[in-house]
Amino acid sequence: SKTYKIAVIPGDGIGKEVMPEALRALSAVCQRFDILLEMTHIDWASCDYYTQHGTMMPDDWKTRLADMDAILFGAVGWPDSVPDHISLWGSLLQFRREFDQYINLRPVRLFEGVPCPLAGRKAGDIDFLVVRENTEGEYTNLGGRIFAGTEREVVIQESVFTRLGTDRVLKYAFELAKQRSRKHLTLATKSNGIAISMPWWDERADEVATGYPDVQLDKQHIDILSARFVLQPDRFDVVVASNLFGDILSDLGPACTGTIGLAPSANLNPEGRFPSLFEPVHGSAPDIYGRNIANPVAMIWSAALMLKFLGETAAHDALLHAIETVLVQGPRTPDLGGQASTTDMGVAIAQLI
Amino acid sequence: SKTYKIAVIPGDGIGKEVMPEALRALSAVCQRFDILLEMTHIDWASCDYYTQHGTMMPDDWKTRLADMDAILFGAVGWPDSVPDHISLWGSLLQFRREFDQYINLRPVRLFEGVPCPLAGRKAGDIDFLVVRENTEGEYTNLGGRIFAGTEREVVIQESVFTRLGTDRVLKYAFELAKQRSRKHLTLATKSNGIAISMPWWDERADEVATGYPDVQLDKQHIDILSARFVLQPDRFDVVVASNLFGDILSDLGPACTGTIGLAPSANLNPEGRFPSLFEPVHGSAPDIYGRNIANPVAMIWSAALMLKFLGETAAHDALLHAIETVLVQGPRTPDLGGQASTTDMGVAIAQLI
Ligand SMILES: CC(C)[C@H](C(=O)O)[C@@H](O)C(=O)O
Ligand SMILES: CC(C)[C@H](C(=O)O)[C@@H](O)C(=O)O
Repeated sequence: SKTYKIAVIPGDGIGKEVMPEALRALSAVCQRFDILLEMTHIDWASCDYYTQHGTMMPDDWKTRLADMDAILFGAVGWPDSVPDHISLWGSLLQFRREFDQYINLRPVRLFEGVPCPLAGRKAGDIDFLVVRENTEGEYTNLGGRIFAGTEREVVIQESVFTRLGTDRVLKYAFELAKQRSRKHLTLATKSNGIAISMPWWDERADEVATGYPDVQLDKQHIDILSARFVLQPDRFDVVVASNLFGDILSDLGPACTGTIGLAPSANLNPEGRFPSLFEPVHGSAPDIYGRNIANPVAMIWSAALMLKFLGETAAHDALLHAIETVLVQGPRTPDLGGQASTTDMGVAIAQLI
Repeated sequence: SKTYKIAVIPGDGIGKEVMPEALRALSAVCQRFDILLEMTHIDWASCDYYTQHGTMMPDDWKTRLADMDAILFGAVGWPDSVPDHISLWGSLLQFRREFDQYINLRPVRLFEGVPCPLAGRKAGDIDFLVVRENTEGEYTNLGGRIFAGTEREVVIQESVFTRLGTDRVLKYAFELAKQRSRKHLTLATKSNGIAISMPWWDERADEVATGYPDVQLDKQHIDILSARFVLQPDRFDVVVASNLFGDILSDLGPACTGTIGLAPSANLNPEGRFPSLFEPVHGSAPDIYGRNIANPVAMIWSAALMLKFLGETAAHDALLHAIETVLVQGPRTPDLGGQASTTDMGVAIAQLI
């Protein structure tokens, strides 16, 4: 039986409620498929830790995580005690950057049994992948304030794109599209308004496209693209986007399929030089924390993506199948119109395995 | 009877198809309310003009437009002959900036008779205003490329926010919210990821908020905010956003109410130092141009907003009422599920006045 070293970081808020359900499901599936997960439970990378230590993580966090095979991550953020930009830049965004998890892969899929907020759409109609650049672009702390506190205060925020960073995410997306039956790739752009970086993204996409003559490339400005997620979600196959645009699209897409409580994500360092990180798209959700009503599916599906990335495809498929079954049969958490608790739904999924 | 000087700029694509319908409706309503519009028809600020002259506008465009009372604008963009960033920065984006049209006001409303892409929503459920900063922020041509054309190419794009520019749009939004019954204002932010400018937007909003104790301020990250436009559109009253975020939200909002073919916008210089500009949110739509099937409502509603801004409230109300009636009775263009032409729908609206 194979052994993998997994760092388990629940983080804050509902991250702490959904993580136990992912562990429960993993334990069931690993038993069935004879996989050994050696778990390291971590209480840092959380706002509780910050409150006690004045920092989100110990200084040697990188060494402690470097030889893990993967990181399973809940959610970070507790704005009442730590401002979001401090908690996130002190944890998740550092993982993504320092471990060069340059692909953020976010499947968007309308499941059987999930009420769709879009009229007249049924399971199967919506099934696409958002490939988000995950380490650079609009997410920076470069820039600053001048004349701070005065009438003439000016704030500069810099976005930084590298050819290396952009080309590799484009290539990854083209490769994915090439493997799919529709072979269609949408590029999120805004070259009509954002006049330096976005025309350049268009150019890079055109150049990378020459290597993929069988993939159809469609460039869409982010404004109309967002509108089309609502109006024509069936037209998308693979969508590639910068860090910010990918962030927006990967919340909007899942909203169109019912609830962001289902949406998983894989923060990948595809070459495996560093550990990859798997987390639900939803955040720590302070507004519902403490009531045990968070939907555990996004977290469990993220754990399934982790197994897939580790090469355990059969275990991934079994987990996904259990999720599909429970979405049809129930029990369901309130975001799905049900009354079940996080635990009820997690237990039901684990039992199906 | 009052006289106003109006510059009429159809621009490109369907801009040229919907503008005649706005003029038809204006002519009907101005006759009824004894208003005189002195129209100046302009063929520049179009890609046709660019193809002939190598520039989007004549050098003295600013003088020619400066003493207009308003600009009625169709759409600009014809990417097959002129790249979007050239055509837009050479026209619309220059108007907004040089005429200091710092408010872009975009109503989002679900009308009776319009099929809603969101399940279970009816007319009246969605009725909010997007207030978009319109002159600065993410829309700049500042930055550049270094090591261009090589493996180590780096592209920097700068966003620039001023206290003056940010505070005035926040104040405008708070004033609007204060006048409405729900007195609720949502701020689009992304302070957890965009670490310089967005925490500063949060701070500015908090400071401006102290002057509006009766308005409830709700800050939401742009990713989850986009999701909520789909999941809970009824919770919004006034939404204030930076240039880019406002651009996205003001296409997404109208998509949630059926079609961006309805969405108008007012690019305002509220003090009237420069002419304001009124245009549909949809662009030139090369994909449907030439078939006379574009929905003229967004353009006609934009003309109505122009009348309102000029102080002709009764004429605005009459136009809006005619729009409402035709949306219920038909005729309807294909985006509304009908088979009527642009002209059919425009004529029907004009006849109702
Ligand atoms: C055409 C484009 C530059 C413009 C914008 O992004 O502002 C348009 O999308 C709009 O919303 O008016
Ligand atoms: C919490 C936040 C910084 C993060 C992001 O914007 O990347 C989240 O929204 C996500 O999508 O993973």
